[in-house]
Amino acid sequence: MTAFWGEVVGTMILIILGGGVCAGTALKKSFAQNSGWIVITMGWGLAVAVAAYSVGRISGAHLNPALTLALAAAGKFPWAQVPSYIAGQMLGAFLGAIVVYLHYLPHWAETEDAGTKLGVFSTGPAVSYTFANLLSEMIGTFILVLGILAIGANKFADGLNPFIVGFLIVSIGLSLGGTTGYAINPARDLGPRIAHFLLPIAGKGSSNWGYAWIPVVGPILGGMLGGLFYKAVFEHQITVGLWYVLAAIVIVLGIARVAGVKPVSGQVN
Amino acid sequence: MTAFWGEVVGTMILIILGGGVCAGTALKKSFAQNSGWIVITMGWGLAVAVAAYSVGRISGAHLNPALTLALAAAGKFPWAQVPSYIAGQMLGAFLGAIVVYLHYLPHWAETEDAGTKLGVFSTGPAVSYTFANLLSEMIGTFILVLGILAIGANKFADGLNPFIVGFLIVSIGLSLGGTTGYAINPARDLGPRIAHFLLPIAGKGSSNWGYAWIPVVGPILGGMLGGLFYKAVFEHQITVGLWYVLAAIVIVLGIARVAGVKPVSGQVN
Amino acid sequence: MTAFWGEVVGTMILIILGGGVCAGTALKKSFAQNSGWIVITMGWGLAVAVAAYSVGRISGAHLNPALTLALAAAGKFPWAQVPSYIAGQMLGAFLGAIVVYLHYLPHWAETEDAGTKLGVFSTGPAVSYTFANLLSEMIGTFILVLGILAIGANKFADGLNPFIVGFLIVSIGLSLGGTTGYAINPARDLGPRIAHFLLPIAGKGSSNWGYAWIPVVGPILGGMLGGLFYKAVFEHQITVGLWYVLAAIVIVLGIARVAGVKPVSGQVN
Amino acid sequence: MTAFWGEVVGTMILIILGGGVCAGTALKKSFAQNSGWIVITMGWGLAVAVAAYSVGRISGAHLNPALTLALAAAGKFPWAQVPSYIAGQMLGAFLGAIVVYLHYLPHWAETEDAGTKLGVFSTGPAVSYTFANLLSEMIGTFILVLGILAIGANKFADGLNPFIVGFLIVSIGLSLGGTTGYAINPARDLGPRIAHFLLPIAGKGSSNWGYAWIPVVGPILGGMLGGLFYKAVFEHQITVGLWYVLAAIVIVLGIARVAGVKPVSGQVN
Repeated sequence: MTAFWGEVVGTMILIILGGGVCAGTALKKSFAQNSGWIVITMGWGLAVAVAAYSVGRISGAHLNPALTLALAAAGKFPWAQVPSYIAGQMLGAFLGAIVVYLHYLPHWAETEDAGTKLGVFSTGPAVSYTFANLLSEMIGTFILVLGILAIGANKFADGLNPFIVGFLIVSIGLSLGGTTGYAINPARDLGPRIAHFLLPIAGKGSSNWGYAWIPVVGPILGGMLGGLFYKAVFEHQITVGLWYVLAAIVIVLGIARVAGVKPVSGQVN
Repeated sequence: MTAFWGEVVGTMILIILGGGVCAGTALKKSFAQNSGWIVITMGWGLAVAVAAYSVGRISGAHLNPALTLALAAAGKFPWAQVPSYIAGQMLGAFLGAIVVYLHYLPHWAETEDAGTKLGVFSTGPAVSYTFANLLSEMIGTFILVLGILAIGANKFADGLNPFIVGFLIVSIGLSLGGTTGYAINPARDLGPRIAHFLLPIAGKGSSNWGYAWIPVVGPILGGMLGGLFYKAVFEHQITVGLWYVLAAIVIVLGIARVAGVKPVSGQVN
Repeated sequence: MTAFWGEVVGTMILIILGGGVCAGTALKKSFAQNSGWIVITMGWGLAVAVAAYSVGRISGAHLNPALTLALAAAGKFPWAQVPSYIAGQMLGAFLGAIVVYLHYLPHWAETEDAGTKLGVFSTGPAVSYTFANLLSEMIGTFILVLGILAIGANKFADGLNPFIVGFLIVSIGLSLGGTTGYAINPARDLGPRIAHFLLPIAGKGSSNWGYAWIPVVGPILGGMLGGLFYKAVFEHQITVGLWYVLAAIVIVLGIARVAGVKPVSGQVN
Repeated sequence: MTAFWGEVVGTMILIILGGGVCAGTALKKSFAQNSGWIVITMGWGLAVAVAAYSVGRISGAHLNPALTLALAAAGKFPWAQVPSYIAGQMLGAFLGAIVVYLHYLPHWAETEDAGTKLGVFSTGPAVSYTFANLLSEMIGTFILVLGILAIGANKFADGLNPFIVGFLIVSIGLSLGGTTGYAINPARDLGPRIAHFLLPIAGKGSSNWGYAWIPVVGPILGGMLGGLFYKAVFEHQITVGLWYVLAAIVIVLGIARVAGVKPVSGQVN
């Protein structure tokens, strides 16, 4: 199997299981309806683990354009292979969403709310606020890339890496998912959104294209920053930059204080 | 111990723990009543892990006719041993259900609803819809077989395999269990259904034989497809077939769109 | 450190963490109050794992008279050491309960119900029914001993054994704990019950001594049966006995059917 | 990267993920709001695991002044490095809290209760009672240090240590967190409390400085006791002291009984 098909099959499994847990907890009459955040986060984490076990030895199981780009930016993956990886990830995510649609076929008509149905496919913000939403996706993906690189640098049997990375995803979901639903992966969000747009889902509404760029741009920016940070600080020991970052934070906070910056109010967008 | 008895004892443990968590969460006055989907899915996943630890070195711990048939279809298990394995699995599942009955003995009369009691033994659909229910069982078992084969191909100490496979079951339950209760195993469903039919359960109702073929046929079909897919695509690198599958999907979706196929309505069966 | 003190310290840690999760979920004003069965079962499972990591290399971390007796009965532990092990376990469990009392000191007076307070220390039945309660404790401990012996026979780094055994405890709790609260360990139940009797707990009630023999006798019987079963069937391949067991079950069920045995009613004891 | 920066980055990740799960479960409109104790405890446990994977090979990932001091007290860490480690931990915790503030930016104004907002940054007692609160933090950190030293002494691939230690944190949270919210780490509590004091959080209230010393002093005392206990009892086999401890407990309990000590009432402080 080529790496391209590895990414297709792997990302498809990721979305079958990840979209599946969204469907199971959201759609009416599902046995798992309203079973809570621990189910959603464990579901996505294990989805990544199962997908990584399946195709890890074939393509390295990136399953995520933000990770592929971050690895390329950090010099750990050839740029020439990036397009075929991203194409495979997008295709797999789209196909996976179709399988979720079929798996939960009679549950779509049972569910009234159109937004709930879109939520099975793609993420949306808890509070709509462009700057913060973009930042959330950046922070989540920064931790994702840093964590994957750091876990990979530890010593243990290769076969346990997917399991540990699965729990990294659980961690990000539990801790950082409450704001934008932690897409942290452009393919995971855009592929199923296209499927939502095309599929004959009973009583579906808008695919919310206005928000669609955030879970694409945020993860790519955050992931590349994470990859560069890991390379500079963890591998090349360039810690002098950290002092500059620190000084900048102190200055910004000081100016904010002096200038009397008011806290962000809840009325946004 | 022969492989036959390994399958008997292993599947018995599987059902004692798996049926046990269904009883614990469903039956009245149980301390675990209504403790939710995370309890049910963790309960079944760890049931598989414990059963696999117990008899893995004796029979390979198939514990599931769909897995035995899938492995045989993929050329990884001798057809000659299939009958004794399936017989052992059916017998073990039947015996395990008797133990669950005894373990929760005073709770049967406490529980009014007959359907709830059947749910301890066998699965049923969240929405009754033959095509979708069968497909759900097929998809779940396809992922099961693919996952088991892929996990087994990774490198780590043998003793961790049952633990990882247990979390594969947790994943399938979390993500794909909301529709039909993820039997994904003919013995797990049919053996306890026979026990339900025979045992003197206080206030029991129908054993719902009309549905009984779905969690038998679905898992067998899905499992064998999973085994053949793994062999063809993962081991023999026959990816050309994937292009055909892809083309077929595009054509079907295109025709559906042109023909104006209406979404499935909620009123089925 | 001698094995005696290993069992004291290990069982003390077991009860600090195990009794702690009971207190945390049961006592009023605790942040973890009513957080459910997944918290209780994960709490006890990880309590065993932490205790086993702590003293596993000193005493083998039995932490349970039923396990010590089962290992002795199976010829895997010298009878001469049994008394000091059991003494250490009882002492450790008693001391652990005192620590739980102190840790949750201001919460006892906040909690009105005396039965809830006893539940932090010792188990009680969901439905009072001597035969079934005893059987529940036997079945749970049978699985415990079988699981521990089988996990120990698998190949993986020694240091992972406590972690896997911890999840065996989670499994037993999730699946079989709903009936009697899965003491499955005489020291875990009797030691803290003595502490409950002696400690100046605000508004405490009866220590329910009438039930106290069941979580002692049940685990010992079930554990020894489990140890003998493992030795006979798993190690000596004596499967002929299994046919007799099977025949006995069929005959009992047949007679019950012919004699028209009525299901157990809910009105017991 | 120097050990100092390892501690900064590691503790920052710890607080991003640990503070993140507090924010996610507490702040209004978060998708994870009110998702319960299992989410909070898994969130913190995996936060430790991810942080330890990230910087374990650089600084040993103490991430906690109480652990650094305990290791120094037990002769396992040079006192000369203690100041830079603690400085790094405090700085990292402070920076991590700023990231949590930014990640959940629009959610602060949505949440009315000022105490809930402080709870994202720092711990507070379920029942205010100085002696018991201090004791709770001491017990939790004693188990933390004992567990970390004991886990480290077991044999398994280095790369699994952070994962197992993560579940040790889950265990402590589940079992002992209900009373004071298990700071068990001075930096984890004080760093974010300073951030809470300085940041322009919408509608924030008091930083509760009156309580701030308890999650600093308690963990340091408990941690050092744990380190000394491990060294004396586990490594030097000095068990004679355990008999004295035991005798002291019996005498205190006896005197309490004879003197007719009344149970602690609920009306405290």
